Amino acid sequence: MTASLDALETPAALVDLDRMERNLSRAADYAREHAISLRPHVKTHKSPRIAAEQLRLGAVGVTCATPHEAEVMSAVCDDVLVAYPPVGRARAERLASLPAGVTLTVALDSEQAMRDIAAAAQGADRAVRVLVEVDVGMHRVGLPQLPDAIALAKLAQSLSPLEFWGIACYPGHVREKVAEQDAALAELDAALIRARRAFDHAGVPATVISAGSTPTMWRTHELSAVTEFRPGTYVYNDRTTAEIGACAWDDCAFTVLATVISTAVAGQAVIDAGTKSLGREPVRGSAGEGWGVLLDRREVVVSRMSEEHGILDLSRSSWKPEVGEQVRVIPNHVCICVHLNDLMYGVRGDVVETTWPVTARGRGEILPLGLN
Amino acid sequence: MTASLDALETPAALVDLDRMERNLSRAADYAREHAISLRPHVKTHKSPRIAAEQLRLGAVGVTCATPHEAEVMSAVCDDVLVAYPPVGRARAERLASLPAGVTLTVALDSEQAMRDIAAAAQGADRAVRVLVEVDVGMHRVGLPQLPDAIALAKLAQSLSPLEFWGIACYPGHVREKVAEQDAALAELDAALIRARRAFDHAGVPATVISAGSTPTMWRTHELSAVTEFRPGTYVYNDRTTAEIGACAWDDCAFTVLATVISTAVAGQAVIDAGTKSLGREPVRGSAGEGWGVLLDRREVVVSRMSEEHGILDLSRSSWKPEVGEQVRVIPNHVCICVHLNDLMYGVRGDVVETTWPVTARGRGEILPLGLN
Repeated sequence: MTASLDALETPAALVDLDRMERNLSRAADYAREHAISLRPHVKTHKSPRIAAEQLRLGAVGVTCATPHEAEVMSAVCDDVLVAYPPVGRARAERLASLPAGVTLTVALDSEQAMRDIAAAAQGADRAVRVLVEVDVGMHRVGLPQLPDAIALAKLAQSLSPLEFWGIACYPGHVREKVAEQDAALAELDAALIRARRAFDHAGVPATVISAGSTPTMWRTHELSAVTEFRPGTYVYNDRTTAEIGACAWDDCAFTVLATVISTAVAGQAVIDAGTKSLGREPVRGSAGEGWGVLLDRREVVVSRMSEEHGILDLSRSSWKPEVGEQVRVIPNHVCICVHLNDLMYGVRGDVVETTWPVTARGRGEILPLGLN
Repeated sequence: MTASLDALETPAALVDLDRMERNLSRAADYAREHAISLRPHVKTHKSPRIAAEQLRLGAVGVTCATPHEAEVMSAVCDDVLVAYPPVGRARAERLASLPAGVTLTVALDSEQAMRDIAAAAQGADRAVRVLVEVDVGMHRVGLPQLPDAIALAKLAQSLSPLEFWGIACYPGHVREKVAEQDAALAELDAALIRARRAFDHAGVPATVISAGSTPTMWRTHELSAVTEFRPGTYVYNDRTTAEIGACAWDDCAFTVLATVISTAVAGQAVIDAGTKSLGREPVRGSAGEGWGVLLDRREVVVSRMSEEHGILDLSRSSWKPEVGEQVRVIPNHVCICVHLNDLMYGVRGDVVETTWPVTARGRGEILPLGLN
């Protein structure tokens, strides 16, 4: 059974199934060709169904940020990396409570995080692999100094049931267009080679060196030390990945279907997708104007937003939209956009073929003991 | 049964119950004192439990933006204004399907919206009241010219089972600090008096003139034509309402509880509340720096964010945070923040007393016929 787009209430999150399947296959092929492990970050799709497809195509496991993501993905995946410091008893214990058959790896950068996950792992009687996070230039998390990182690796070795497993980094500061990443990637390559050697030399060799993101993914093979990469956005892509050249515009698989709800003010049309549908994320890799762009009229951007209103700037378009007309918006940053939705509509052309829940959205709160 | 804050997994959405109760009472008292109808917008809390409390304190009904909000609120309220154009068959039919005992009013600014809701109302055999939306300076929705607005009111009169009910406007462009709103409010007052007279003169008198928002709420009585106001944010308040003086800092009832998860990079601490917890909303009424501010250390702002990371700028603070420490963040714009959460934790002091679901969050998707 199918439905047509105009039967949907808007705003609605659409996934072009053909484009998504192509995006997934292309990344899997790239990983295979270069013999780099692909461990997709599920933060973008938050769906066990899509994770299962990524695994079927050859992914070695998944990457998660939150305990809820890790729990949901455990239903379809037995190799879960939580690329997020397991700080705090509630978080650490929730991670340690994942099904026993799941190989759990965590990335961290502090002794406190290490002690939190060690205590939880001991309590749950499970092994946990540890990646030590190094800062390669983003200045978010990660140890900037290799001696500190090595000390943490040695601490992991000493804290049963933890096992030091390798090095993690996130080159989120590399935001140039893909064709202009030469200098940044050369620097990153050198830094990771230095790190690998230093860890080897200190007697804590890294089994895995885990890096990567969608903006740099097609050049991962230039990072000779990297053994696995963790792109998330590539499943759907967005205005930013298109603008920086990490995908073509035709690879943008995700759009928000919206309806023109007012044309009362001259020079603009108002759609029913605002901040609560699109998020208020800047676009990278271009002049940075607007909060999204129309799929079929890229001269029209969402120039202003309220919570449930998006203002389309018509000043560069000959289009005369009418109240009731549907449009599709490519968001600037799809991960935020998906996180705002509970349900995805899978479409081919103008036909809605299927739906699926965004199962790992939110926190999946587990109430603490004593609270009813 | 209760729990302590440090038992919670973070990020977690906290509501200070004492502060919320004070905020609700103060608005109810103001409305009563000035004999203006209070019709709170539920977009901020999205909770039937809080709506019920607003009604108990004297609200005449609620304001909603989405069909899902209207459905959820119908469980506790029999007078629902959807202050959003009912454009599109799916939306209009969903609204017309609200329980028969609910008095439904919609605000709109186009003939198409009128015809959509008229068809749905006819199909459902229910009366629907219509407010004609006028643009008073925000330039979002609303008719800028009174003759156009009056023509629409006359159309409503002619389309059974619709009933013309009044005039709606949203002065969202008034963003000055409360003490500096004199000129804007005088202009608005004059515009609404003109509108009322023009509608009277044309033989379509407005029973209700509905306006207002939290930033202007305490001066609503200066708008002599206004019969009801629709603030939303006042239930929780946020950094913006505090900065513009619509509340005191001590009236900020909503915070995101977060944990310091990294201090590896000098000069900053990283918390586990990022864009997926706080949203990326600008602050109004101040220099506009940062994405949120710490409840107990207002010299510390969230200066950068990733999806699950918030970077605290420590440059103006003597505080030396440790990994594992909890903080509470006042977001710039609470409505967006609540929309990111499924569950609220109600606290008094450091004790978690209760929880409630954000029932009207999301879209509550109803799949169209033909889609399984």
